[in-house]
Amino acid sequence: MTDKTDKKQSPPLMEKIVALCKRRGFVFQSSEIYGGINGFWDYGPLGAELKKNIRDGWWNDMVRGRDDVVGIETSIIMHPKVWEASGHVGGFTDPMVDCKSSKQRFRADEIWFSPVIVDGKIVGYVSMLETERTTEDLQDKAETLKRKKAIQGKLEPVQPRDFTQATPEEIPLVPSPATGEPGSLTPARNFNMMFETHVGALREESEKTYLRPETAQGMFADFKAVLDTGRVKIPFGIAQIGKSFRNEITPRNFIFRSREFEQMEMEFFISDDDDWEKWHRYWIDWCYNWLLSVGLPASHLSEYNHAKEKLAFYSKGTTDIMFRYPFGVQELWGIAARGCYDLSQHAKFSGASMEYFDEEKKRKYVPHVIEPAVGVDRITLAILVSAYAEETTTDEKGQSETRIVMRFAPRVAPIKVAVFPLLRNKPPLVEKAREVYKLLQPHFTTEWDDRGNIGKRYRYQDEQGTPWCATIDFDTLGEKGPELQDTVTLRDRDTMKQERIKIADLVPLIAGKLRT
Amino acid sequence: MTDKTDKKQSPPLMEKIVALCKRRGFVFQSSEIYGGINGFWDYGPLGAELKKNIRDGWWNDMVRGRDDVVGIETSIIMHPKVWEASGHVGGFTDPMVDCKSSKQRFRADEIWFSPVIVDGKIVGYVSMLETERTTEDLQDKAETLKRKKAIQGKLEPVQPRDFTQATPEEIPLVPSPATGEPGSLTPARNFNMMFETHVGALREESEKTYLRPETAQGMFADFKAVLDTGRVKIPFGIAQIGKSFRNEITPRNFIFRSREFEQMEMEFFISDDDDWEKWHRYWIDWCYNWLLSVGLPASHLSEYNHAKEKLAFYSKGTTDIMFRYPFGVQELWGIAARGCYDLSQHAKFSGASMEYFDEEKKRKYVPHVIEPAVGVDRITLAILVSAYAEETTTDEKGQSETRIVMRFAPRVAPIKVAVFPLLRNKPPLVEKAREVYKLLQPHFTTEWDDRGNIGKRYRYQDEQGTPWCATIDFDTLGEKGPELQDTVTLRDRDTMKQERIKIADLVPLIAGKLRT
Repeated sequence: MTDKTDKKQSPPLMEKIVALCKRRGFVFQSSEIYGGINGFWDYGPLGAELKKNIRDGWWNDMVRGRDDVVGIETSIIMHPKVWEASGHVGGFTDPMVDCKSSKQRFRADEIWFSPVIVDGKIVGYVSMLETERTTEDLQDKAETLKRKKAIQGKLEPVQPRDFTQATPEEIPLVPSPATGEPGSLTPARNFNMMFETHVGALREESEKTYLRPETAQGMFADFKAVLDTGRVKIPFGIAQIGKSFRNEITPRNFIFRSREFEQMEMEFFISDDDDWEKWHRYWIDWCYNWLLSVGLPASHLSEYNHAKEKLAFYSKGTTDIMFRYPFGVQELWGIAARGCYDLSQHAKFSGASMEYFDEEKKRKYVPHVIEPAVGVDRITLAILVSAYAEETTTDEKGQSETRIVMRFAPRVAPIKVAVFPLLRNKPPLVEKAREVYKLLQPHFTTEWDDRGNIGKRYRYQDEQGTPWCATIDFDTLGEKGPELQDTVTLRDRDTMKQERIKIADLVPLIAGKLRT
Repeated sequence: MTDKTDKKQSPPLMEKIVALCKRRGFVFQSSEIYGGINGFWDYGPLGAELKKNIRDGWWNDMVRGRDDVVGIETSIIMHPKVWEASGHVGGFTDPMVDCKSSKQRFRADEIWFSPVIVDGKIVGYVSMLETERTTEDLQDKAETLKRKKAIQGKLEPVQPRDFTQATPEEIPLVPSPATGEPGSLTPARNFNMMFETHVGALREESEKTYLRPETAQGMFADFKAVLDTGRVKIPFGIAQIGKSFRNEITPRNFIFRSREFEQMEMEFFISDDDDWEKWHRYWIDWCYNWLLSVGLPASHLSEYNHAKEKLAFYSKGTTDIMFRYPFGVQELWGIAARGCYDLSQHAKFSGASMEYFDEEKKRKYVPHVIEPAVGVDRITLAILVSAYAEETTTDEKGQSETRIVMRFAPRVAPIKVAVFPLLRNKPPLVEKAREVYKLLQPHFTTEWDDRGNIGKRYRYQDEQGTPWCATIDFDTLGEKGPELQDTVTLRDRDTMKQERIKIADLVPLIAGKLRT
C-alpha cells in the first residue's frame, strides 16, 4: 500500500534522480543500446562503488563484526526440490490480468475500480492503475462519468476495490486502464514469478529448475552443512548477499521493483522455546539503526506490522521497516518470525534431519528463525533519494546559482576524497598534488580531477557526493611562506567550508571523520 | 590440454582438499540434502570469506587503486541481441556425443581414441576419456586388445585423436568410454552452452533470453554510457565482478569447471594505432604478479600462447596464465587482445556508435581492447591447492603427529587472527581475552575460540589457515610480575613460533604484517 505524498513534487524528484544517475554513472538501463530490457538495470562506476559500500558495510556489521553470525554464498540455481519444499513452485504467484484489446498486461491488485452510484443506483464503473491518490482520482472519474452521461442526482462516494475482488458479473463492466472501455479485461489468473531454466544438455531430458527468487533458501538448505563445521551454537545466524530473480508482471519505480536484484538476508536460528518476540524486536531495532548508519533520515522511516490474520499460517509475526520514497511509503526491510516452517519443510522433502542438539538443554529440536531480509537496490534507491538536495548558493562571482549535492553518509559515498591541483599546467602543483593523491589512495577511494576551475570541480564532486576535496595551491608549495607550506585546502561538501590542513594530517583526519 | 603430473599423487590430494573444504566449511555441494545438483557449489563460512578477500583484493588493485580503470555491475540477464552481436547465439557451443547404450553424454573433445595397428594393419580401436596420461593409457589398452584378440606381430605406437576428428567410417568402430564396446556413440553435434530463460509473463509471447556466459559483454554494451559520464579517457579500462553461467556438458574437477561461476573481467580500451603488444604484455605481467600477491607459487604458474592459426579471425593474440592443479596444468587467467571486434559488432547490431573521439589525435575511432579474464572459483581452487600442506610435527607430549595447515597468504586468509583465553572457566582470563578480541575485531576478521586445549585450538586454526593466534594467559593478568602484564602470546601459523607481544602493539603489528 502507498500513502499520500505530494503528487506535484514526486514525479520531478524521481525524474531528477534518474537523470542524475545516468549522467553521473550511478545507474544505467541494462542493454540500453538495444532499447533496454524491462526490469533490468546496470550500475555505472559510481553506482558500483555505492553498492559495494552498502554490501561491505552490511557484511562488516552483520558477519565480521559479530560472533554469532556466519556468512555463506550459495548458488543461484539450486535443485528444483528446494522450491517445492519452500512453497515457491506452488504459491509464488502474482494475479495477472490481460486487456484483450490493447494487449497490455497488468497486475490485478494494481487495478482499482469502483461502481459509480447515483441516487443509490449503479450507473457504470470507473477504474485506474493505483497511484498515490487512488480514491480521489476515482472520485474525479466518477464525476466525469456522471457528467458525460448527463445523469441527474446525488453521486455517492466511490468504494475502491482492487481487481482481484471483482465478481464475475463485474469483470465485463470494469473499464480497462489501457483503453478506458469495459469488456476487454480477462479474469485475474495466477502467474508464477520464478524464472525457469533447464540444466543439462537437452531440454527434453534435462531437469527444469529455477533462478532463485530469494537467497534465504540457501541458508536453510545448507543449515546442516554449516552445523557440521562446528562453528556455530544456537542462537546464531547464517547470512548471505546475492542476486535473486523475480519475473515481475510490472517492474516499476526505477530500481525499486526490478526483475533481477540483490538481497542481503540473514536467518537467525533460536531455540524452539526462546522468546521469539524479544529476538524479533532485537532485529527490527538492529536493522533500523543500521539504516540510520548509512544515512537514511529517521523522518523517512516507519514500521508496519502485518496484520496477524493476513500472515501465512506458520508465521508468528512480520514487521516491515518502511521508507518514504517519492512514489510512496514502501517496504524496505522485512523482519519475519517464521517459526520452524522452512527447516521442517526441508526435513520433510529431503528426508534429512534438521534437528539441532542443544548441549545445555540436553535435547534435540528444530530451531525457529527470525529473518531480516532487505534488497540492496532498494537501500541504494533510498540512499539516493535521501542524499539528493538542491540548494541556492552564491558562486565566486557573487551570482546566485543552484547547487545539486548528494549528501551521502561518508561511509557509503562512492568517492571519499577528491584531489585537485589548482592549475593543471603548473608542473610543481601537479607534482605535489600527485603526491597527495598517492598518499590518500591506499586508504580511501580517491579521485583525481584537474579539469576546469576549482568551483566547477566542487560542483562536479557535489553531484557525486564526495565528502571532501583537497586542493593543492601555491601556498602548499610554500610560496606564501613556510607556515602554509605542505598544507592543503580541505573543503567540506555539506558546509562548503574550507580548512587549511597539513598534508601529514590528512589520512588520520579523514579516517577519523569516516568513523563517526 | 593437460600435462603429465604424477598420477599417483593427484587424486588423493584433490580428495583431501574436497574433504577439508566440506569439513571446515569452505565449499559445500549445492542442494546436498537433495542429492546435489551437478556443476553447482556453495561456499561455506570460510569459503565465503576467502572468496570475498579475493574479490576485494582484485577490486582494490584493479579499480580503486588505479586512475585508469572504473568498475561497473551489469545485469546477468541482458537483451538477447547482446548475445547475437557477441557471437554466442551462433557459436558458443561444445561438441557433444551420446552413448546410445549407456545413455551417458560426453564432450567429444574429451573422448580420445586411436586405431590399433599391428604390422601396418588396423585390427581395432581403443578409446578413453582424457586423463593426464592419455597416450600411455591408450597404448596400454592397445596392448591389451592385441593380447585379447591373440594377434601376432608388431604393435605400432598409438595415434591419439579426439572424437571430433573421427571420420564417419570410424565413428561406429570407436568403443564407448562408458561400455568399452563400439557402435553406440553418436556423431558429435554442437550444443549451445548458454542457459535459456524467458522474460515476461507468458512463455509463448515473452522473449527468450539467456543467463550471461561471461561478464565481458556488459562492459561492451555499456561502453558508450560509461564514456558519456565523462570519467574516462583512452587508454582506460572497465572492470566487473559477477556471476556467469555455462551449461557445461561435463562439469568436473570440483569448483574448476562448474555451471555457475564468478568472473573478474576487465576490458582495457586502447587507441586503434597503439602498440597492442606492449599493452598485452603489460596486462599479462600485471595478472601474473597479482597471482603471486595472493599466494600462488611461481613454480605452479606458466604461460601458454595460443597458436595464431587457432585464434578467431579478429583476435590478435591470447596468452593464458596456467596453473598446475592436481588434475593437470589448466587455464587460470586468459589475457586476450581482441582488436575492435566486440565494439564493432555491437555498433553493427544496435546501430549505436561505438566511436571514441580522441582529443589529442583529433579523430574518431573504435577502440581496441585487451581483456584479462579470470574466474574467482578457479583462483579459489588454486589458492586452496597451493595452501594445503601436511607436516610431521611433535605435539606437547613429545609425540609425532601430522599437522594439516593451510598456508594462505595473510591478505586472503578467511580469518586473520584468533583469540584464545588459556582457560574458559577462569573469568579474569576470559574477560581479558574479550577485551583483546574487541580490540582486534574492528580491524581484522577475528575469531574467538575457547574450546579444548591450546594445542588443539592451534591445529584447528591451522586447518583453516589463520596466520596468527593470540593467547591470553595468567602472565597477561600480571601473575608473573608487571613486565609480562598486558602481553599476549602471538603464535605464527607457518613458523609455529610464539612471541610475547604487548596488547597495545597488536593492531599495528598485525596490520604491518598484512601489508607485506
